[in-house]
Amino acid sequence: MIKVGVAGYGVIGQRLADGVAKQGDMELVGVADVAPTLPVRALAERGMPYKLFTAMPEKRGALDELGIPVSGTLEELVQECDVMLDATSAGIGAKNKEIYQKHNTKGIFQGGEKNEVADVFFHGYANYEKGIGADYLKLTSCNTTGLIRAIDAIDRAVGVEKTAMTIIRRVADPGDYHRGLTNALKVDKAPSHQAEDLMTIMPHVDATGVLVHTPVTHGHIITPVVSTKQGIDKKQLLEIFKAHPRIRVVRLEDGFLGNASLFKYARDLGNTRGDMYEIAVWEESIVNSGDDIMFAINIPQEAVVIPENIDAVRASMKMQTSRGEGVAKTNEYLGMKARG
Amino acid sequence: MIKVGVAGYGVIGQRLADGVAKQGDMELVGVADVAPTLPVRALAERGMPYKLFTAMPEKRGALDELGIPVSGTLEELVQECDVMLDATSAGIGAKNKEIYQKHNTKGIFQGGEKNEVADVFFHGYANYEKGIGADYLKLTSCNTTGLIRAIDAIDRAVGVEKTAMTIIRRVADPGDYHRGLTNALKVDKAPSHQAEDLMTIMPHVDATGVLVHTPVTHGHIITPVVSTKQGIDKKQLLEIFKAHPRIRVVRLEDGFLGNASLFKYARDLGNTRGDMYEIAVWEESIVNSGDDIMFAINIPQEAVVIPENIDAVRASMKMQTSRGEGVAKTNEYLGMKARG
Amino acid sequence: MIKVGVAGYGVIGQRLADGVAKQGDMELVGVADVAPTLPVRALAERGMPYKLFTAMPEKRGALDELGIPVSGTLEELVQECDVMLDATSAGIGAKNKEIYQKHNTKGIFQGGEKNEVADVFFHGYANYEKGIGADYLKLTSCNTTGLIRAIDAIDRAVGVEKTAMTIIRRVADPGDYHRGLTNALKVDKAPSHQAEDLMTIMPHVDATGVLVHTPVTHGHIITPVVSTKQGIDKKQLLEIFKAHPRIRVVRLEDGFLGNASLFKYARDLGNTRGDMYEIAVWEESIVNSGDDIMFAINIPQEAVVIPENIDAVRASMKMQTSRGEGVAKTNEYLGMKARG
Amino acid sequence: MIKVGVAGYGVIGQRLADGVAKQGDMELVGVADVAPTLPVRALAERGMPYKLFTAMPEKRGALDELGIPVSGTLEELVQECDVMLDATSAGIGAKNKEIYQKHNTKGIFQGGEKNEVADVFFHGYANYEKGIGADYLKLTSCNTTGLIRAIDAIDRAVGVEKTAMTIIRRVADPGDYHRGLTNALKVDKAPSHQAEDLMTIMPHVDATGVLVHTPVTHGHIITPVVSTKQGIDKKQLLEIFKAHPRIRVVRLEDGFLGNASLFKYARDLGNTRGDMYEIAVWEESIVNSGDDIMFAINIPQEAVVIPENIDAVRASMKMQTSRGEGVAKTNEYLGMKARG
Repeated sequence: MIKVGVAGYGVIGQRLADGVAKQGDMELVGVADVAPTLPVRALAERGMPYKLFTAMPEKRGALDELGIPVSGTLEELVQECDVMLDATSAGIGAKNKEIYQKHNTKGIFQGGEKNEVADVFFHGYANYEKGIGADYLKLTSCNTTGLIRAIDAIDRAVGVEKTAMTIIRRVADPGDYHRGLTNALKVDKAPSHQAEDLMTIMPHVDATGVLVHTPVTHGHIITPVVSTKQGIDKKQLLEIFKAHPRIRVVRLEDGFLGNASLFKYARDLGNTRGDMYEIAVWEESIVNSGDDIMFAINIPQEAVVIPENIDAVRASMKMQTSRGEGVAKTNEYLGMKARG
Repeated sequence: MIKVGVAGYGVIGQRLADGVAKQGDMELVGVADVAPTLPVRALAERGMPYKLFTAMPEKRGALDELGIPVSGTLEELVQECDVMLDATSAGIGAKNKEIYQKHNTKGIFQGGEKNEVADVFFHGYANYEKGIGADYLKLTSCNTTGLIRAIDAIDRAVGVEKTAMTIIRRVADPGDYHRGLTNALKVDKAPSHQAEDLMTIMPHVDATGVLVHTPVTHGHIITPVVSTKQGIDKKQLLEIFKAHPRIRVVRLEDGFLGNASLFKYARDLGNTRGDMYEIAVWEESIVNSGDDIMFAINIPQEAVVIPENIDAVRASMKMQTSRGEGVAKTNEYLGMKARG
Repeated sequence: MIKVGVAGYGVIGQRLADGVAKQGDMELVGVADVAPTLPVRALAERGMPYKLFTAMPEKRGALDELGIPVSGTLEELVQECDVMLDATSAGIGAKNKEIYQKHNTKGIFQGGEKNEVADVFFHGYANYEKGIGADYLKLTSCNTTGLIRAIDAIDRAVGVEKTAMTIIRRVADPGDYHRGLTNALKVDKAPSHQAEDLMTIMPHVDATGVLVHTPVTHGHIITPVVSTKQGIDKKQLLEIFKAHPRIRVVRLEDGFLGNASLFKYARDLGNTRGDMYEIAVWEESIVNSGDDIMFAINIPQEAVVIPENIDAVRASMKMQTSRGEGVAKTNEYLGMKARG
Repeated sequence: MIKVGVAGYGVIGQRLADGVAKQGDMELVGVADVAPTLPVRALAERGMPYKLFTAMPEKRGALDELGIPVSGTLEELVQECDVMLDATSAGIGAKNKEIYQKHNTKGIFQGGEKNEVADVFFHGYANYEKGIGADYLKLTSCNTTGLIRAIDAIDRAVGVEKTAMTIIRRVADPGDYHRGLTNALKVDKAPSHQAEDLMTIMPHVDATGVLVHTPVTHGHIITPVVSTKQGIDKKQLLEIFKAHPRIRVVRLEDGFLGNASLFKYARDLGNTRGDMYEIAVWEESIVNSGDDIMFAINIPQEAVVIPENIDAVRASMKMQTSRGEGVAKTNEYLGMKARG
């Protein structure tokens, strides 16, 4: 059993812990955080299904006072683990890396960290091979992770040359009070970092994009216009996407009217936290523009990166040494399968 | 085992089914609906943990086509059950009642139905006794259910004379596309029906209120100003609320900043669908106005009515013939307990 | 002086009346509506700067009761006018047309009417010539009007071959209570009608697009990806747009962060109702995708169609018989000029 | 003519300048700001109807570069003025006061400054007499200003003893990108500062309140529950409010459905920036709670404080030495009158 720890028990960290706990071939040693945040209080109210370690021992008094059991320090957690999934706030991961290095523990960082923190900028489906045996990996951010799933799938089938995308970004997560937008759309300087990150992972694709923030909390929507080598029509695209275990094809006609429908559906499925690992593509959104193809994808921002993080554990620990075997194991334990 | 069916598998119906399934002394025979809505599709994707019956046999083709197993008609479900929880759209319940009567099955209706449909307008904590043995009960709506929990608790302690409340209403549920409000507050004609419903259940209290709709989806907030016979201060109020299994006292200081924090917390607790049965009162919102007391309550609109519906089954079926025993059994099976 | 009337005094009708009143060579005879709506009440509170006619004489009692002066019937207004600008609800225009025909009055309809109501589907900049002398014209809707300004300008410079656009639509106007969206993005069936309308006006362009509704009230944002015959870079595009009197080039750097900044700026300019006639293009949003170009446009949905409606009066009444002269007169009276 | 300057040309400063410019017995010498913000750019695009002075001479290069004419420094503006209306960001006013003192110029500060900055905490209707001849006055904030109008009017008629209010606060102004809330209500620690400020201005009233932030931009809604000495019913309250030049009584029945309707109506009135000086009370929201009375007020947060600021100029400069004459002059020049 590969021993895994999670640093930072926030939106992503909680979901990484849940994801690791579902893997039959991994053991979640524990999670680390610094204060009695709402997620930590919820963990305690649930009876501590995961052990909690403190990343700031000098502040553990606040946890002790509330009777929240602390199993040790972050460093002690790192010592016990083969690999750490680091979901701390941007910038902290780079500091934590020193502890990981000290104890020869591998580290997997999230999209908010600078690329320099890692040896490999990783995506389970697009470049699994690069991550094999690597010590420090950085995952793509939520939008880029979901987007690459789709672009990589098209690329492997018909060859992608370029893409120009519009990213309609949800501005905050449910429960966020530290950021928000009220009755306003906000435009970012182009090209968006998602396009640039895509090109780092898939250097043969020319990508650009415009990002617009919107005042909603459930799921980004991306509308890429994709130019391919061989050309592709709606029918072919549907076949590709329906065969992909991490992509759901949904229909307006069935009641999937937008990003909020997918969040509702994930809750109705009984998924923990109402989470969904899969991106969704609306069948009725697919249109050709000459030989190019355009479509709308939904990115469930809170959970979409979990499968690729698990892939990263598999690659870095050489649990599976081929892309196909690696992602298949992750998909199996997370319950994702082709629905085509 | 008391046999229970659920008619209408929407926002409330799904949660009623989950709630019944958790009762050690009830059996959920099945749920009924008419079409492959998102909740029905989710039920199928989950592998049909609950049996589905069709309320419109002439339309079952749409379900058959999707391979969704149908266990019979609504009428067949009713025949098998001791009591039906009816969560169909407003107006349908009155029609379903004829089927219930035909088969001597009891019926419990939701707040959207007219009062005439039922013999008793019921609230588990406020008038359990009235429901004992009754054939047809109607529950209060989400706001009124949560509000009465708080007002009844104060009333039993120090006697409530009157209350004037402001209801800051969430305008839609997560995933709703058929209703919504964008960048607008909407004022309703006063007094609001919640005040009038409260007086029907608690006729010795003089209640009035103004309701304002707000463009959010997670939880109503009510701010009652309450006049009591004996007078009450913050400390006493906190004691009363902390002793109540269906009321959570939360603090801004701990990170519970508003209704969205409570939804987030329920998700982080791992509660199915991110639901919460308890209302919450913010400790820092409690203030005296002379001898009157004012405070802010959060009402999680999707799940708050479930416990009182279960209470209604207990009362109508005479499973427990005292209020104390009835609500205690519901609380036990739903995992609610005093946290004081 | 050309005599102009306005039928329907709502969001668009009020602004058409204001626009006509600003033309030195047109006379606004009056406006017609049916009931004491908020705009009609505001007109009365302002002291009736425009004469009000009633489209439903049988209902004028409601206006009389409030002391709102009524100058006659819609039919009497039509008789006095050379041309009617019809901004009634979708479907009513087709009925009004019979009155216009009876009195040989020309009619100009809005985007909500069916194309059959008119002889010409009109845009001041793209096909002014087609409208010259025509009796019945239909204008494009707000999104299409603004979009065509940009695409037509590029087309005249370097030839447009195709465009694939994302339309990020504001879902309601400020003050709308009859429609709205709360915390949800909504996807429409593709291709969007704006793409199809563009092709009707500019048949040599291949257009498609995906539309996503967002819960905001101030301004649509469109992000077209445009393929041109000659190719075009950011510098050229900026020159074209800066030379266009109906396009503003704005910068994130200057504080124009999104659609809400443009609404704020129009209010700060002291524009009546905080309206803006110009579309805006964000300089920092312009990027090349290979030889294609992509950018973000803001469409101020309430007022953007006014200039093209005035153009339509000019064309249909042969006030100016060339596109250049026609739009120039409109621009002069509405105060629009190139800012390059 | 009393010479008036405005420091800070933002949301409030722009409206103060417009308000002063409308007074027949005041001269607006100019406005001061520091950078080419959107309001300053709009002022320039309008052709500089007001002279601009720079509060940071070392940064005037940015204004010069854009060709925006600068008429001098803030200190030079202060020297020319009898009184300065200070609408700078919180904290700056206290610093500016030193310049005002140096030149014997009176200063009127906004609600964001600390009370210590001023000799008198002022409200035109509630305590005009205290401001007469005072050198430094501080106005109440937008919510408190509007609230006091209503409470003071009731108090003068039937004597107010106490009030417990709910403040449903708009979280940002239109065009704000530096703050916002997305799909969340936020609760503040009680009692809210508005209640405390009311007690400072009207010390004989016992006030408390709970404030809830909502994700909208047009107008706060306050629902006070008011206890009076003599008791008051809906009819009496309507008479009091209808006789008040700064209060509008509106009806749901007429189409005023919420705060967004009032913003729309102000735009339709052709008011500059779509502003409204009056608060509004919904007739259908008025209800008795025993002898207490409850109602809903709309506070147009951007412009509501302007009349009381003008009153402050009148009082401090002894232009009118009685409350009745002072507020009447302000009302006359701003076009506010009783509509009863």
